Amino acid sequence: MKPLESSQLDNRLFMAGPITESSVLLSKPSDMKHIFEVFILRHQKKFCDALEYFEKQADPMGPRFISDKWQRSEGGGGISCVLQDGKVFEKAGVNISVVHGSLSKNAVVQMKKQHTNLELDESSSLPFFAAGISSVIHPRNPHVPTVHFNYRYFEVKGKKGPEWWFGGGTDLTPYKYNEEDFVHFHRHLKEACDSHDINYYRLFKRECDSYFVIPHRKERRGVGGIFFDDLNKPDLESAFQFISSCAAAVIPCYIPLVEKHYTNNYTEDDRRWQMIRRGRYVEFNLVYDRGTKFGFNTPGARIESILMSLPLEARWEYQHQPEAESEEQKLLEVLRTPKDWIPLE
Amino acid sequence: MKPLESSQLDNRLFMAGPITESSVLLSKPSDMKHIFEVFILRHQKKFCDALEYFEKQADPMGPRFISDKWQRSEGGGGISCVLQDGKVFEKAGVNISVVHGSLSKNAVVQMKKQHTNLELDESSSLPFFAAGISSVIHPRNPHVPTVHFNYRYFEVKGKKGPEWWFGGGTDLTPYKYNEEDFVHFHRHLKEACDSHDINYYRLFKRECDSYFVIPHRKERRGVGGIFFDDLNKPDLESAFQFISSCAAAVIPCYIPLVEKHYTNNYTEDDRRWQMIRRGRYVEFNLVYDRGTKFGFNTPGARIESILMSLPLEARWEYQHQPEAESEEQKLLEVLRTPKDWIPLE
Repeated sequence: MKPLESSQLDNRLFMAGPITESSVLLSKPSDMKHIFEVFILRHQKKFCDALEYFEKQADPMGPRFISDKWQRSEGGGGISCVLQDGKVFEKAGVNISVVHGSLSKNAVVQMKKQHTNLELDESSSLPFFAAGISSVIHPRNPHVPTVHFNYRYFEVKGKKGPEWWFGGGTDLTPYKYNEEDFVHFHRHLKEACDSHDINYYRLFKRECDSYFVIPHRKERRGVGGIFFDDLNKPDLESAFQFISSCAAAVIPCYIPLVEKHYTNNYTEDDRRWQMIRRGRYVEFNLVYDRGTKFGFNTPGARIESILMSLPLEARWEYQHQPEAESEEQKLLEVLRTPKDWIPLE
Repeated sequence: MKPLESSQLDNRLFMAGPITESSVLLSKPSDMKHIFEVFILRHQKKFCDALEYFEKQADPMGPRFISDKWQRSEGGGGISCVLQDGKVFEKAGVNISVVHGSLSKNAVVQMKKQHTNLELDESSSLPFFAAGISSVIHPRNPHVPTVHFNYRYFEVKGKKGPEWWFGGGTDLTPYKYNEEDFVHFHRHLKEACDSHDINYYRLFKRECDSYFVIPHRKERRGVGGIFFDDLNKPDLESAFQFISSCAAAVIPCYIPLVEKHYTNNYTEDDRRWQMIRRGRYVEFNLVYDRGTKFGFNTPGARIESILMSLPLEARWEYQHQPEAESEEQKLLEVLRTPKDWIPLE
């Protein structure tokens, strides 16, 4: 792995300066904790710039991303970037956080399910490091889908030694049925996966379809993408290279869909349907999303950053049913029975 | 207790005919299960009529309550009455349900915490009966508060014999700080309580303040009211009389506030603040409300009836803060630190 260099720490490359002191980052330039921090800082900037471009096109005087840098009293902090009430984006949030400290017993128990090396006695707590980038983009135009992605890195020092793993995913929540868009989105994700492991796309597409389910609605939040957790194979460097490919795919996955549709005409009915689907997004995020739940249960969590994923506006109509054979109905069908947008070998 | 008479079963007294066959209701006219069913049917009609009156005043051709009668395949059913997108009410839901069958092991475990008579071995399930009325009213004008009430009756046949209990409450979620309104609301609840037990109002006001908390926001959903569960004292008839008084208080608690404010002028900013507070309402109901959670975990539950409590529209603004010393700030303060609107002895 290429060690960090001071030229990579120029603040102009980031939305705000690093969470960790530059001198600390450069003192251990090959430490994955530091490499990952700089990686997410850089990706945050790139993605915000890519989105802001459209907002500038649509409204030279309109809102731009604001960056909030926050500190966590127990160790670390984050940078929340939000663009709100724009012409193109109703709410666009791109957050990073880099936190460390001790894992509470509760959190350890949650982790122990998957991480069997983390044996510990009743009273103990574990030193941990967690860093990630998380983003949800809610555009105004119903023809432009909502996108969500999240890439994260963990280290925990268990009794039997240190453990590391990555998690993440990118998924699409459209309001209009547009197969061309869905295939485009999945194709870029598949390419990112295939260059690392020929099984990854198939596996992580399935995991995504299983995760983003709203059981009480018997539907998925969107048309999927990829989702994975506990990735600690084949080795630290290769796993990081895979994460890099996934993160690099976000812009080519999504930005062309914004470009293609942000000036489309739409009706009041399109907008109403979008608001109803955003209600479902709220239902998934508040009731089922693990990250949100974890945030609610973590004392001192920055709630405003966690809930930036919620749309600016949402709607709940009693007994709303799209008309038979409507485009909305067609979308609902693929939310109920996920489709393979690209043939899986 | 006065037994049911056939004159009480005239369908014109209800939004829709009883869930249970009239012949069955009259075959055991002193059974609390039947008395309670007719009681909630009647209350549903009275409350819907009281609300619809304003909608007719405001818009002679506007929407009215629609009644959906539904059946539960495992036993019983309900009537959901919803008035949506009116001039006065954005969404008004008044539901009743009367269900019976076997309690699953999961539900039994939840109940066992409080109902220690319900001893049972691992595999057993219990015959149960549950009936209730539940209502959430979201008015359009931000000067008119949202109200919620719920009154319910349970019977379970445990190994050590049958158990019964009542639960319920009425609470107010305002968007404007109006102490006169809050005092009016609480005074009527206190009067309903005081005629039965001089300690009830104090106890149930406190329970309400403890229940409607949104921990991640460090605030309450509204300015409270009364809330209680597991009420099985002093005897079945007296407990039912108390429930009757509470239910009878709903109209004098709330309807005068609608009357007083539904034609008030309001600004775009008032409306925006109302939408933001409705977002908090959604957060409480989806994340913390026991009834909603129970519904999500009950296979075959009628989700549209459970989620009729959600507002027609809600809003989430990143980092929204009311201005210092604003009326909104004043409201937030009493949501953070509940106040005794009436001096408690």
